[in-house]
Amino acid sequence: MVPRYARPEMSALWEPEAKYRIWFEIEAHATEKLAEMGVVPKSAPKALWDWWATNPEIDVVAIDAIEAVTKHDVIAFLTWVAEQVGEEARFVHQGMTSSDVLDTTLAVQLARASDILLADLDALLDAIRRRAEEHKYTPTIGRSHGIHAEPVTFGLKLAQAYAEFDRCRDRLKAARREIATCAISGAVGTFANVDPAVEAHVAEKLGLAVEPVSTQVIPRDRHAMYFATLAVIAGSIERLSVEVRHLQRTEVLEAEEYFSKGQKGSSAMPHKRNPILTENLTGQARMIRAYALPALENVALWHERDISHSSVERFIGPDATITLDFALARLTGVVDKLLVYPDRMQKNLDAMGGLVHSQRVLLALTQAGVSREDAYRLVQRNAMKVWESDGALSLLDLLKADDEVTAALSHDELEEKFDLEYHFKHVDTIFARVFG
Amino acid sequence: MVPRYARPEMSALWEPEAKYRIWFEIEAHATEKLAEMGVVPKSAPKALWDWWATNPEIDVVAIDAIEAVTKHDVIAFLTWVAEQVGEEARFVHQGMTSSDVLDTTLAVQLARASDILLADLDALLDAIRRRAEEHKYTPTIGRSHGIHAEPVTFGLKLAQAYAEFDRCRDRLKAARREIATCAISGAVGTFANVDPAVEAHVAEKLGLAVEPVSTQVIPRDRHAMYFATLAVIAGSIERLSVEVRHLQRTEVLEAEEYFSKGQKGSSAMPHKRNPILTENLTGQARMIRAYALPALENVALWHERDISHSSVERFIGPDATITLDFALARLTGVVDKLLVYPDRMQKNLDAMGGLVHSQRVLLALTQAGVSREDAYRLVQRNAMKVWESDGALSLLDLLKADDEVTAALSHDELEEKFDLEYHFKHVDTIFARVFG
Amino acid sequence: MVPRYARPEMSALWEPEAKYRIWFEIEAHATEKLAEMGVVPKSAPKALWDWWATNPEIDVVAIDAIEAVTKHDVIAFLTWVAEQVGEEARFVHQGMTSSDVLDTTLAVQLARASDILLADLDALLDAIRRRAEEHKYTPTIGRSHGIHAEPVTFGLKLAQAYAEFDRCRDRLKAARREIATCAISGAVGTFANVDPAVEAHVAEKLGLAVEPVSTQVIPRDRHAMYFATLAVIAGSIERLSVEVRHLQRTEVLEAEEYFSKGQKGSSAMPHKRNPILTENLTGQARMIRAYALPALENVALWHERDISHSSVERFIGPDATITLDFALARLTGVVDKLLVYPDRMQKNLDAMGGLVHSQRVLLALTQAGVSREDAYRLVQRNAMKVWESDGALSLLDLLKADDEVTAALSHDELEEKFDLEYHFKHVDTIFARVFG
Amino acid sequence: MVPRYARPEMSALWEPEAKYRIWFEIEAHATEKLAEMGVVPKSAPKALWDWWATNPEIDVVAIDAIEAVTKHDVIAFLTWVAEQVGEEARFVHQGMTSSDVLDTTLAVQLARASDILLADLDALLDAIRRRAEEHKYTPTIGRSHGIHAEPVTFGLKLAQAYAEFDRCRDRLKAARREIATCAISGAVGTFANVDPAVEAHVAEKLGLAVEPVSTQVIPRDRHAMYFATLAVIAGSIERLSVEVRHLQRTEVLEAEEYFSKGQKGSSAMPHKRNPILTENLTGQARMIRAYALPALENVALWHERDISHSSVERFIGPDATITLDFALARLTGVVDKLLVYPDRMQKNLDAMGGLVHSQRVLLALTQAGVSREDAYRLVQRNAMKVWESDGALSLLDLLKADDEVTAALSHDELEEKFDLEYHFKHVDTIFARVFG
Repeated sequence: MVPRYARPEMSALWEPEAKYRIWFEIEAHATEKLAEMGVVPKSAPKALWDWWATNPEIDVVAIDAIEAVTKHDVIAFLTWVAEQVGEEARFVHQGMTSSDVLDTTLAVQLARASDILLADLDALLDAIRRRAEEHKYTPTIGRSHGIHAEPVTFGLKLAQAYAEFDRCRDRLKAARREIATCAISGAVGTFANVDPAVEAHVAEKLGLAVEPVSTQVIPRDRHAMYFATLAVIAGSIERLSVEVRHLQRTEVLEAEEYFSKGQKGSSAMPHKRNPILTENLTGQARMIRAYALPALENVALWHERDISHSSVERFIGPDATITLDFALARLTGVVDKLLVYPDRMQKNLDAMGGLVHSQRVLLALTQAGVSREDAYRLVQRNAMKVWESDGALSLLDLLKADDEVTAALSHDELEEKFDLEYHFKHVDTIFARVFG
Repeated sequence: MVPRYARPEMSALWEPEAKYRIWFEIEAHATEKLAEMGVVPKSAPKALWDWWATNPEIDVVAIDAIEAVTKHDVIAFLTWVAEQVGEEARFVHQGMTSSDVLDTTLAVQLARASDILLADLDALLDAIRRRAEEHKYTPTIGRSHGIHAEPVTFGLKLAQAYAEFDRCRDRLKAARREIATCAISGAVGTFANVDPAVEAHVAEKLGLAVEPVSTQVIPRDRHAMYFATLAVIAGSIERLSVEVRHLQRTEVLEAEEYFSKGQKGSSAMPHKRNPILTENLTGQARMIRAYALPALENVALWHERDISHSSVERFIGPDATITLDFALARLTGVVDKLLVYPDRMQKNLDAMGGLVHSQRVLLALTQAGVSREDAYRLVQRNAMKVWESDGALSLLDLLKADDEVTAALSHDELEEKFDLEYHFKHVDTIFARVFG
Repeated sequence: MVPRYARPEMSALWEPEAKYRIWFEIEAHATEKLAEMGVVPKSAPKALWDWWATNPEIDVVAIDAIEAVTKHDVIAFLTWVAEQVGEEARFVHQGMTSSDVLDTTLAVQLARASDILLADLDALLDAIRRRAEEHKYTPTIGRSHGIHAEPVTFGLKLAQAYAEFDRCRDRLKAARREIATCAISGAVGTFANVDPAVEAHVAEKLGLAVEPVSTQVIPRDRHAMYFATLAVIAGSIERLSVEVRHLQRTEVLEAEEYFSKGQKGSSAMPHKRNPILTENLTGQARMIRAYALPALENVALWHERDISHSSVERFIGPDATITLDFALARLTGVVDKLLVYPDRMQKNLDAMGGLVHSQRVLLALTQAGVSREDAYRLVQRNAMKVWESDGALSLLDLLKADDEVTAALSHDELEEKFDLEYHFKHVDTIFARVFG
Repeated sequence: MVPRYARPEMSALWEPEAKYRIWFEIEAHATEKLAEMGVVPKSAPKALWDWWATNPEIDVVAIDAIEAVTKHDVIAFLTWVAEQVGEEARFVHQGMTSSDVLDTTLAVQLARASDILLADLDALLDAIRRRAEEHKYTPTIGRSHGIHAEPVTFGLKLAQAYAEFDRCRDRLKAARREIATCAISGAVGTFANVDPAVEAHVAEKLGLAVEPVSTQVIPRDRHAMYFATLAVIAGSIERLSVEVRHLQRTEVLEAEEYFSKGQKGSSAMPHKRNPILTENLTGQARMIRAYALPALENVALWHERDISHSSVERFIGPDATITLDFALARLTGVVDKLLVYPDRMQKNLDAMGGLVHSQRVLLALTQAGVSREDAYRLVQRNAMKVWESDGALSLLDLLKADDEVTAALSHDELEEKFDLEYHFKHVDTIFARVFG
């Protein structure tokens, strides 16, 4: 976790105190059910909840000190709780194993993290939609391979981003379902010493599903799927970030990240305005992707479980979710305040002497009866001249002067092929598909 | 693609001929709709389908020769088709761009690959279920950290595997939905020269959904999600493979891969029976995981598209699906014919002098009023003696001889704690959860 | 392996026949030494080499047929050799284990592959050096963050690439040393049944170093390092490819991949010239990087060895080296024939109204006694005007008209700050560092 | 960075204060040289060093506050320094660019981190060597595929680990050379405003090499190679950790991690001693491997540089080195205190009824004139009986009772083949190779 790439709400979720609070809730809910079933006295859960109702502080330092001796975190915590609650605490954790607590806690943390991330995605989607509507019909050149192709609108670019993050939202919801399970099944998952009813009770209280079959641990294919999903979302963040970086290039300059007063782009070159937020996001996306790898390697635990996944999750649990939360929020800010330059878009669109309309002419020639090969040859020979003039010549003028072309298409017909609006007739269709 | 790790049906899907057949279908369906809309003459699709009805061979060599000149694969193919079909072929590909064909083809290939993989998973699930039922109550030691923990049944191990691959099946179905989309939207995705109705028609004919917004290409977050999902499935393959490898270790030997007549385990040591299939699967899983990475990097194409994803997909499209198909089938064979040794399982279970029952005694002591800390100490001091005797001593005997213990629990009560059946009382519950 | 991304020499190295030839050489050299030591009769190596001198064809199909029965590749090969050579062949493989042959063979293959790759790098370095010398003083804008910064020369860009690939060459040589070792140490590496002298002999004959301690297998940290090194080289390929792709963007167009007659950039837009070779290389780089991952996971074999690395190496051995060979050759072609446009470079350099000289002015102001903060403010307020005029205004003119500026610097002094040559005074120093 | 997996010396290297100290040194050394060359007054470096000599505290909070306004870290730092040093500070950073400072600082940090890691490796190598000498002739079973193969010694296992980490040491030294370079070359690497002599001076003072050609930044192929090397070392850590985990399995139990008083293996099962340190190391190795990936993606910066690498390095710079430092130290502790059980090793070695000697018999039969195929058949038929008896039968007894065998080998000859010492005759040779 890098502090400058962390936001408080998500970070708090991964603090020791937050973890211990969840541990307590799991133990208390379990004890409650055990009491209801007559396994432990009813005084036990009562003592626990009574103490909890006092809203006690969790003394992380004291718990750490106990762990330094026992070298076992859950035992350390239970020992500390017993010191606070007293005698009745001995019924806690009855028939359970540490992993019942640890894995269910991770489920709660990842579920809550997912809720924050879903809210992040909602905010990002809102920002993209707003800017897309704003620029629904702002003409700009569409590029492929970095080369001018045909006209699009800036709103279409954003509609694409919207659709992509909307898919990310669905994926994240599915990923949340993957990890939001509760396992309280004992040392090797047989419920030998704890009834399945306890698991069901705790699951319900914490808003989790019951893990159908656990083996001391919740199986790690769930977590692999979760972090792989975050990696895919990171890819989409990178995509939109790279788009902004391209748009801000000096020669393109169709959009810029917002540039605040007092901000200095370079210690040496005062004129520079660098797309540092999106460059930054590009790097963060690489990190979030990388975190998926150890999650994938974590799946193949030995037999009913080994604990090799645990050190990995101490890193990637917080690092992946905190960084993704930060990145989504930062990207939302970039989109929200993006400086868009329609004039420059138009200028770029016009810069190639009308070459962007070449395909329409090609099609018109074909429809006028010219063979595809001939039509291609006719268009290309004029297009090449324009291309080599660096946009100084006009494709329309050259075509009008080409006898083979005008034998098939009149000047009026040719002019009609250079109409920008022609390209935007289905923008509304696409918007309807994307924004509903 | 490594030939020895490839099966014919899946491999055929990725042969040039299969690709060209899909190309033709896309072009012909599109031309059909264009004719219906009056954009091209009705004679055009008729000519195409008439030729197709002759079940023509695709001359891959001839198409390659044309591509060597044009350096453009779709143009090369269309040129070759025109040579076969004649004059009417000039209406083909009207208003479309190469990517309309290429990306929709990849969607068809991945969807069909997914269908094969889903069938593979079904076969694997069947095999696991059958063996799980067979060994529902076969006792075996449950391990954590590779250390004996408490009794489970071999059926439970397999139930866990079943639940895991069942999740993989759901994930694969979701991943199939991700990539089964059709885009016929023209050079930059605006439908400038091809009506959305064409896309809808082709999509329906090919069993695909319509891509809401494409930008020449189908967005690559879809494919990233797809290959990431295959990577997760590979993780589950590795997990079960590692389990078999562990079970086949000389000292454990609770199960073995089937060993056929004539098979030689080692050129030097004739007695060796090595778990080579599952070792092999472990390596294949590493490969399938690796293929997800470039798919994740493919998402951030430049602007409306660049073509950097294409060379990646020429590798991972076939390599990931062919290898996964092979791996699932091989794993199914391993499970189906696995030699299971219940006697050895029992022997291992008994090898530790009853230590596996220590937790029950611990709980019983607590319930009999001993504090948790004291109970832990009492059990541990006896357990340690058994442990250090390498299983020569019996925990039950030692406990019976420990006055502090017998002060809380009678000999009869102690004996009851060493009953194996106690651990299996919820096997049925778990089986019901997993197998329904 | 994707056939279109493979070159014959490298591919041949990974054909079964090439592998069997190396197997034979290892076995024959080992038998030779064994005979010299009196372990086997001298007639044994003689029979082997006599047969070999007839330059026999390797019957891959026959060997495969034997393997289908024995399920063991080395035994199958030795059986086939025995059929050819006769009686004396029974002394072959004495005291050796399959891995002695397999791992030493892989070492030979990777060493030979490295030699091809080193030659590829030499060719690439030659091409870069030639173009660097050609454009040593061709002015072009240096960019950071994609934003114009200060002038550089195109030769400097290439010098950077040269230095980078020169480092890659050193790394590859080191990586070659890592994997070029011979192990003939028997079933668990103890030389129990084969004297270390045999290993030394075979190593010398094959140009390999002796593996100090093997454990049936050559340790896989060597291969991990090897494939990780290829991954780093792939990164450098991507870097130069991305540079070309940027230079070829429509708005930049300072260089282009060579565009041959007959080549069609787009089926729809005849004017398009896309940087498809370098986009392609970008994707190939992603693949080569991905192959490093399973190599890293291969290190942790179980005990003295498991065979999980083997299936991985069947993929990545050929795929990584063949693809890298192809990519290096393709990149060499791109550099060799790159169309460079100095006029356009100059035009882009001039496009920002002299902003690229702002830092010099800033320094001059400081040296003239203005505080750094004031100097920054003075330059920035004028730079911003130029920036917002989209290059229509001239920074020099504005500075001349700014009283606060001219209070510190005269018009002559200001003009001197806009001299392009100023920036190139150390080009020669850098070239001397890089090219020696 | 996970606090529990961090050691103070390495962590301190990545604290803001450490970074700022290096920044200061770079700026001060550069100013020194500039003064020597007459570019700035000699009073400037004097003022800087005088202030430095007071051993001032770095006020990280104050610098952060300035950065919050300027949004530029180097400017913020220089502003703060100017506040401390006064007037003369305006000559600092003359002609330099932020990256000159940032990249050279990273070089210093990574070089220092490497020195710590090299010391860690030395300590690990010492521990391994000591334990290897101790168990040079401790017999243990060698395994392949997890299956018993032939005898080795425990010292040989450790010799293998020693050789592997010795290679890691060489690799790390090479990797250190890769990144220990200094670049002070100005905004785009042309030395336009800063003489190369400044770079040379700073490089020498900081113990770095001069970067031959930088482009504002030090090229990131260097860092990719660095982090890839750490990933390879992580693989070796995982390998030895997995070995320990296997040895500690209940059924194997040939060695155990040291188990301290007060340590509790499981909250439920008091007898459990889990290999948690090496499981932990396995997970940490996964993380260190993962960090190599974004480093590889960082290579392809745009043009002379973009800043996407920066956010990545804020993570992996500290996280990879801190975790590796911790892991190496932890592994050293594991090796140092490893509980080794020679009796159990012998017991396991004997458990298979002498099957581990089968190859020697096979060879002896061949040498006695039996064909390889017959010899294999004779050994295998007896070996299979032993195998199926689960070690109850003795291979030697069976062979003695097999007439076809005794026709070739006498009882005395057979007995000689079962001598353990036979396998250890080259242990000394191997130790000499490894330990010199």
